[in-house]
Amino acid sequence: MTRDLQDLLFPRSVAVVGASATPGKIGHVLFSNVATFPGPVYAVNPNYEQILGRPCVPTVADLPEAVSLVLVIVPPQDVLHSLDACGRRGIRNAVVITAGFKEQGGKGIELERELVRIASKHAMNVVGPNAFGLVSPRVGLNATFAPRSAVPGNIAFISQSGALCSAVLDWAWPRKLGFSHFISLGNKAVLSETEFLAAVARDPETRVIAAYLEGVEDGREFLRVAGEVTREVPVVVLKAGRTEAGARAASSHTGALAGSDRAYDAAFRRCGVLRARTVEELFDQAAVLASQPLPFGRRLGIVSNAGGPGIMAADAAAEEGLDLASLAPATVHALAQRFSSAASVTNPVDILADASAGRFRDAVELVVGDPGVDMATVLTAPHPILTFAELAAILAEARVRHGKPVVASFMAGELGEDASTRLREAGIPAYFDPAHAVRALGTLVRYQAIRTRAQDKPRVLTVDRARVQDLVAKGNTRLGVETLELLAAYGIPVARGGLAKSPEEAARLAQHLGERVVLKVVSPDIVHKSDVGGVRIGVPASEAR
Amino acid sequence: MTRDLQDLLFPRSVAVVGASATPGKIGHVLFSNVATFPGPVYAVNPNYEQILGRPCVPTVADLPEAVSLVLVIVPPQDVLHSLDACGRRGIRNAVVITAGFKEQGGKGIELERELVRIASKHAMNVVGPNAFGLVSPRVGLNATFAPRSAVPGNIAFISQSGALCSAVLDWAWPRKLGFSHFISLGNKAVLSETEFLAAVARDPETRVIAAYLEGVEDGREFLRVAGEVTREVPVVVLKAGRTEAGARAASSHTGALAGSDRAYDAAFRRCGVLRARTVEELFDQAAVLASQPLPFGRRLGIVSNAGGPGIMAADAAAEEGLDLASLAPATVHALAQRFSSAASVTNPVDILADASAGRFRDAVELVVGDPGVDMATVLTAPHPILTFAELAAILAEARVRHGKPVVASFMAGELGEDASTRLREAGIPAYFDPAHAVRALGTLVRYQAIRTRAQDKPRVLTVDRARVQDLVAKGNTRLGVETLELLAAYGIPVARGGLAKSPEEAARLAQHLGERVVLKVVSPDIVHKSDVGGVRIGVPASEAR
Repeated sequence: MTRDLQDLLFPRSVAVVGASATPGKIGHVLFSNVATFPGPVYAVNPNYEQILGRPCVPTVADLPEAVSLVLVIVPPQDVLHSLDACGRRGIRNAVVITAGFKEQGGKGIELERELVRIASKHAMNVVGPNAFGLVSPRVGLNATFAPRSAVPGNIAFISQSGALCSAVLDWAWPRKLGFSHFISLGNKAVLSETEFLAAVARDPETRVIAAYLEGVEDGREFLRVAGEVTREVPVVVLKAGRTEAGARAASSHTGALAGSDRAYDAAFRRCGVLRARTVEELFDQAAVLASQPLPFGRRLGIVSNAGGPGIMAADAAAEEGLDLASLAPATVHALAQRFSSAASVTNPVDILADASAGRFRDAVELVVGDPGVDMATVLTAPHPILTFAELAAILAEARVRHGKPVVASFMAGELGEDASTRLREAGIPAYFDPAHAVRALGTLVRYQAIRTRAQDKPRVLTVDRARVQDLVAKGNTRLGVETLELLAAYGIPVARGGLAKSPEEAARLAQHLGERVVLKVVSPDIVHKSDVGGVRIGVPASEAR
Repeated sequence: MTRDLQDLLFPRSVAVVGASATPGKIGHVLFSNVATFPGPVYAVNPNYEQILGRPCVPTVADLPEAVSLVLVIVPPQDVLHSLDACGRRGIRNAVVITAGFKEQGGKGIELERELVRIASKHAMNVVGPNAFGLVSPRVGLNATFAPRSAVPGNIAFISQSGALCSAVLDWAWPRKLGFSHFISLGNKAVLSETEFLAAVARDPETRVIAAYLEGVEDGREFLRVAGEVTREVPVVVLKAGRTEAGARAASSHTGALAGSDRAYDAAFRRCGVLRARTVEELFDQAAVLASQPLPFGRRLGIVSNAGGPGIMAADAAAEEGLDLASLAPATVHALAQRFSSAASVTNPVDILADASAGRFRDAVELVVGDPGVDMATVLTAPHPILTFAELAAILAEARVRHGKPVVASFMAGELGEDASTRLREAGIPAYFDPAHAVRALGTLVRYQAIRTRAQDKPRVLTVDRARVQDLVAKGNTRLGVETLELLAAYGIPVARGGLAKSPEEAARLAQHLGERVVLKVVSPDIVHKSDVGGVRIGVPASEAR
């Protein structure tokens, strides 16, 4: 099912149900942010006639238009009524920020079920409940209570953690990391990751999708949609609850069942989703995918003014599965002519500590321009003779001229600050650590492999659902052998066999199985069968008993 | 051999041979830095009578005193003469910054050999050549050409890469990361990592030693010294050239043989050295070891105002081998009384998004004070109701009151900046990423295990060196069987056996070996013996032929 989320993602008018005029209240903080939206904005609250200069109506029914999007921040017991009123008013998109639903258990679970029914009745797109809100940077809407909005850019961020949304907004602002979409999923009662994945991928401004998830609602649909999306747009997922400890914490947080991480891993691999283990990895990967072209191969060129960082980069390249490019003889020759004999003119190229920006220009041009180089990193430690800002301009030029990925490791603090800003403006990620720069390039190579992967479809098995349900209902898997029946019901090929309760039964069974059989002891008391000599293989059927 | 490096590390007077009065020249940049030293400083240069207000003498012989430390920055061909003059003047410590020695190959190799002879003749401690210099923060000496010096602190940094020195100085300055020692090793012609390891560990201000190495000069001595040092002071090493690509780059950089990384890994493990794979890891580990007490166990308490970050921290804890602490019933009870039913009062404790600093104070006090908690991390996403600066003060209090490691993940950008400074001043490391905070605690647990490890000594084998040399000289290891003899010469127990060139010889040999023998085909053309049926085990000796 594909939902139309255009109006939700790019609203033309917005109302806040539960807007408050009292500074300090969350309903006021949220409305102050929404009030900066350039289109029509309405408050809904029976106590005021206007808030922050915007019209305030007593009820949803009184809204002068069916707004594109309504934000709901009334107490939990009033949410259902408000949503229903919105539906009746012809409003089709709502974000419920109010908490106190499924995540609280008890009565909250029923409340959330009722919310789903109302949404369904009015065919409403509902985000949340218990959502942090959303930011639509291109239309200038900050529908969250965060002090900072998101700047427009190419990363679509989808998060099951509202806290992470608030953290990322504040963190991304000084870094000028830009977003095409910024969405808090909340409890995912109606809309989940899959609908948003499809919707934000259709936006041509989205160059990468980054997601924080604690679980996936509909695995099959997620696989299908993600499998399509990742052929065009990279998707990076930080799936929390990877470990048993994490999964336990997740289940107490949102009630989400974290699921087996190996299953997630296999599924993500299958549909081409890149994984991140930490928030830093998530945004490192997203930032480089949003800013760089994809390399044609895995051959890395390294230019530095220092041996040590070159070695660290070479180590990182090997660990990322990248190859150190073999420079063309012409490149090596030109480097040798240009630089002193103490320089290293093979990859990693080291033009020595006292290299000026001019010398860097020549080396970068030669290495990035070499046809055997698919991507490059430039590593520089501070030296009195070198101006980082000049070097940044040189990299920006090379990046544009050759259309290859170029990342920088300007190994400096204060000295490199202006240069890093300049690099960022030129679309070149800069890192302190050479290993960090190389890892970013590794991400590009991994996504390039995903993009060009063979279009092999997963095999679909015919499942005997009635039989599966019957077996699961019986719940009898104490001996282990019953699981073979379950697998067979799922259409998974299993070895033929059966449970024998006497030597005679074993002999009878063996007759039907073939020439040689395997005998295994079956007992709830014996876990490690082989240890007690409880497994015999290649037994002639005639001797089985 | 233990060298006295006190005067080198804490000089009372300094001279710069090759100081220049010409702005822009490296000899001037270096001297400008050295001239800020509060003790006597001399320039040595025949062209001036003073530089930057400090006396300048024509030759080393003219120095009015035998200074504690001389810095040499004259052209390579003049270095030997200058060093010899220093020795004759009674100077016992020199840092040779000039490059163009062993690292350049050719004539440089001989030049470096001669330098070693001169150092030995005068019993001089020589750092370098090709060194970036050193900083002695407590005596106020910046003997490098970097624009920033190091601030006094507890990290001793030893680096085989001068570039990394320049990078780390610039990067550490705005972070107020403090150093007890800051040493560039250069080519390690005379003094190497091991001498400095021993010397800086003796300084009570050193709380952790961080080193960047491309190779270790004397493995046996390093093992001995590091094994002693790590019982008192943690040592973290970034060993570059871990991979084949990195090792090749290292050998072209300093001519160092990187050696097998598995051997380094085993050696570091043996002597209790922690490894870092990247510069960031190196300083992450150093910073937490320098600032935190060691935990008594591996039980982690987590307090957050957000579920998602708590889950990420739980995942990271499991991956770091930490346990989530089980809070005492009294703690859980007190938390349940204090917080709403929506809060999670078991570990990870989640006091919800709208937690004020006051609520954090209660939760932090209860969790950090719980006897079942060995260390804690506090995770916070921004919320309008929360002031990070207040929270920082609360953590600082808890840290002091309970004497347990406490680290923070303030998941913010601008909002958390002041707070991070305050935390740093209180000796509490702060990270954006919850996983990063937990990893830091993992470092403490790993070092705690090293510190308390059993005092098992490596087994020393009796080596038949003459036999080893004889076998190596023959160089005949083409068939593989000869290596058994080599191992035996090293005193390593090997199975008895021999090479038979005919069935008769095999039968004869087998008589002496025992009841049953193993037969293996030996041929330079057969690498995978088993694949061609070339291995038979358990053959009765009487049938062996």
